[in-house]
Amino acid sequence: MLTYSFSDVGSDSLYQYLYKCIKNDILTRNLRAGEKLPSKRSFAKNLGVSVITVENAYAQLISEGYLYSLPKRGFFVSDISMLPPEAAFGQNGPVQSLSDAMKRASMTNPAGKSYPPDTEETAERTTLPGAAHPPDRTNPAGLFDTADRPALLIDLTSNQTDIRNFPFSIWAKLVREILNENQQELVTNPPCGGVLKLRTAIARHLRDFRGIVVAPEQIIMGAGTEYLYGLLIQLLGFDKTYAVEDPGYRKIARIYEKHKVACRHIPMDENGIRISALERSGADVLHLSPSHHFPTGLVTPISRRYELLGWAASSENRYIIEDDYDSEFRMSGNPIPAMQSIDLSEKVVYINTFTKTLASTVRISYMILPRHLAERFYRELSFYSCTVSNFEQYTLARFIENGSFEKHLNRMRSYYHKKRDLLIDRIRKSELNPRALIREENAGLHFILELQTALSDEEVCTRALQKGLRIAALSGFYAQFTPGIEHRFIVNYSALPEEQIDEAIRILCESIG
Amino acid sequence: MLTYSFSDVGSDSLYQYLYKCIKNDILTRNLRAGEKLPSKRSFAKNLGVSVITVENAYAQLISEGYLYSLPKRGFFVSDISMLPPEAAFGQNGPVQSLSDAMKRASMTNPAGKSYPPDTEETAERTTLPGAAHPPDRTNPAGLFDTADRPALLIDLTSNQTDIRNFPFSIWAKLVREILNENQQELVTNPPCGGVLKLRTAIARHLRDFRGIVVAPEQIIMGAGTEYLYGLLIQLLGFDKTYAVEDPGYRKIARIYEKHKVACRHIPMDENGIRISALERSGADVLHLSPSHHFPTGLVTPISRRYELLGWAASSENRYIIEDDYDSEFRMSGNPIPAMQSIDLSEKVVYINTFTKTLASTVRISYMILPRHLAERFYRELSFYSCTVSNFEQYTLARFIENGSFEKHLNRMRSYYHKKRDLLIDRIRKSELNPRALIREENAGLHFILELQTALSDEEVCTRALQKGLRIAALSGFYAQFTPGIEHRFIVNYSALPEEQIDEAIRILCESIG
Repeated sequence: MLTYSFSDVGSDSLYQYLYKCIKNDILTRNLRAGEKLPSKRSFAKNLGVSVITVENAYAQLISEGYLYSLPKRGFFVSDISMLPPEAAFGQNGPVQSLSDAMKRASMTNPAGKSYPPDTEETAERTTLPGAAHPPDRTNPAGLFDTADRPALLIDLTSNQTDIRNFPFSIWAKLVREILNENQQELVTNPPCGGVLKLRTAIARHLRDFRGIVVAPEQIIMGAGTEYLYGLLIQLLGFDKTYAVEDPGYRKIARIYEKHKVACRHIPMDENGIRISALERSGADVLHLSPSHHFPTGLVTPISRRYELLGWAASSENRYIIEDDYDSEFRMSGNPIPAMQSIDLSEKVVYINTFTKTLASTVRISYMILPRHLAERFYRELSFYSCTVSNFEQYTLARFIENGSFEKHLNRMRSYYHKKRDLLIDRIRKSELNPRALIREENAGLHFILELQTALSDEEVCTRALQKGLRIAALSGFYAQFTPGIEHRFIVNYSALPEEQIDEAIRILCESIG
Repeated sequence: MLTYSFSDVGSDSLYQYLYKCIKNDILTRNLRAGEKLPSKRSFAKNLGVSVITVENAYAQLISEGYLYSLPKRGFFVSDISMLPPEAAFGQNGPVQSLSDAMKRASMTNPAGKSYPPDTEETAERTTLPGAAHPPDRTNPAGLFDTADRPALLIDLTSNQTDIRNFPFSIWAKLVREILNENQQELVTNPPCGGVLKLRTAIARHLRDFRGIVVAPEQIIMGAGTEYLYGLLIQLLGFDKTYAVEDPGYRKIARIYEKHKVACRHIPMDENGIRISALERSGADVLHLSPSHHFPTGLVTPISRRYELLGWAASSENRYIIEDDYDSEFRMSGNPIPAMQSIDLSEKVVYINTFTKTLASTVRISYMILPRHLAERFYRELSFYSCTVSNFEQYTLARFIENGSFEKHLNRMRSYYHKKRDLLIDRIRKSELNPRALIREENAGLHFILELQTALSDEEVCTRALQKGLRIAALSGFYAQFTPGIEHRFIVNYSALPEEQIDEAIRILCESIG
């Protein structure tokens, strides 16, 4: 049985000391994910302490996400992974109670892998130790731990929306108006594709700002892009072969896996998906993010986009799913036209979301189907009710219609641009600079930081985590072994508070040895 | 080409007359679903009228849902079916524009069939002609049509929430509070199973009111039960054989069909699913609604529930999905314990929704997983983000916590009970009475009305529709031919305004010949 000596307790209380010992073993992986800890009673007996001591230590570890408990089964070690957590980057919900900690302990990261990367897909659990308290106005560093080892302070993998960035007062005003003026519409079931006002507003917005011209009928709303991907499988067919970028946002591959459809991983070059590899793969449906690839940050140039459209047009069975998830945040240069807008063969399904532009928690995404696919959708899948709440749809429609969305986007672009510039400037002025190379910083809300280090990616990430910084390495996102991509780290700065920038850089310096 | 004589125009304008002619042909099925109408120009030329005349006629038909247009393709006849439309009974959104009519025209009914029932599943389109204007406070009968044939007035297939029944002022107050006081939580990603406060509130409610005792961890929130069914297929396996009740809520079978999993239809007797037929079917996962079967209204007695649990417990692969969708509205007698609460073998997945108790448009449902399935879910499917908006979840949590949900339920029970009693009383006092037999009126929001008539079910339904009443026949819900169930009609009174009760009865009288 797990055992500790209490000779070194010092000024800590017994439970604090026990808590630190267990936590340390978890962070250094002496205790492995999923490992069952002793029952409180037997552990107490073995250690020669009271049950209360064990109880308190367990309770704190649970509340911080290091352990979780299953009713009538016991206490288990959470899985700490170096890869970003859920929802484009993860689910960083605050720990509200014991039960919540279990849930968070059970969440898998988008890659579905633990670190170091396995060659096979395994559904490992991931949690965010110490991410119990998201940064807030009064406690920006998230410090809550009295132990000498810091809890997780800074998360460069998170896309957690900052409350300062959600337009609460406008939203509240619109919700009030909707609840007063649109009562009948609110309780009336919308068409399967969603509330028309919202689809019309989105169509207008896309026309004005993205050069995409479609009828509202072609827009299908959904409660998150993951749901839309499942719908697309039902629409395009379980017998198709799907393809994702390698490296890529692992959650897409997981969705295909869970639906038991064939999924290929297509390697990329400096311009995006390799056409020859795509051809060889036998894929029918290609998922990609040409505006801003995750995780590499790469922007697919127009020439490659045309080649891909050519690939799709050469067979009746082929389609492209264009995931435009953060195209609103291009930092510099002209945006390249969406593939949807240059597609003349009705081969491109365009997907976007309000997760990055508004908040992940409103749960509103949409896909644009080319005409013949829209017709098929209405013929075959229209029995599905729309998954997005009417209340949300009408509020968002109004938010877009009255210009608030555009203003909000401008504000956010400015905010992110300023933060990105500040972060890059601080990196360049820091000790990190001689050993740092910044890549792909011109699009979206993340870029790549290549660091000179003799340490492995795992070592760097583990060290950083122990010092209170969570960061993900690019190498963790490759399904197929690819040489030469070590020492590259993904800096997702969207949820990084400005006041933590210097600390983050400092920790990185210390972590690369 | 389609042609009409304008010799009989009378006092109508040319477009009104043309509108009536086309509408009549659609209602009497001279024009079939999906049939393409002539282009405006050629039709005008052929009829000897102006293009404007045709344009106006088409526009009105589109706005009422009889036609739909596809950009650059033309005008098509909507599919009128006798079966209930979407979303437990349907999607009756008001027509907001041309595009909206197309969507509604494209919606399939839950059975996925047109009337009369085919032996094969076909994805036919359904619309609700004339259901463009739902009943409202100022226009309860929904009369908007100046033509002499009434537009559809009364819908006995709809579960459309009445705005008088949604607790707008309480909801608005709670939303305001949430937007003021819970901002951080609102923008923080919840665990994959949903916001803990809500799951805790639901667990407490189920314990107090349904005798179901579960940990919040076992509750998984989802944006509608259809989404949860898809998730369950991924959890339980694509290789399983699924089974539904026959007759049954056809949408469930459609979901299995669209996911390409094997689905059997199990016949019922007067106590519910026939065990012997279930055994013979080789099914692994049985979906049923023991509290209140749709469409028969049958309540599965405790003895049969135990038999079904015995069936499930005899094999490792077997599970029961208990859909408890309107158990809150039992009209008399004691509720029978949910199968979930008497299941000792961890075989029952319990599903419920706020669609009937609150509104279908908030899009909140949940499933309760037995422990080992919950563990599997967290291991394998927790990468999926929760599909329900945080805003909705926190508002609903508060609504339940502060007792408002219980008060609302009491109010709704009372309202529906009163309406049901009134309807049954009016039937008994009407000319319909000698020819009417009422069945299964003690549970939920629908009952069966058996009518003495020499006419076929299709004839009765068509006549009723022409007179402005929409009703569905039980026979349309059987996948397998079953003799002796003709002349039984499903009366869903949940969206029937009191002031329309007598009119509905009058039309039924006239329709049965």
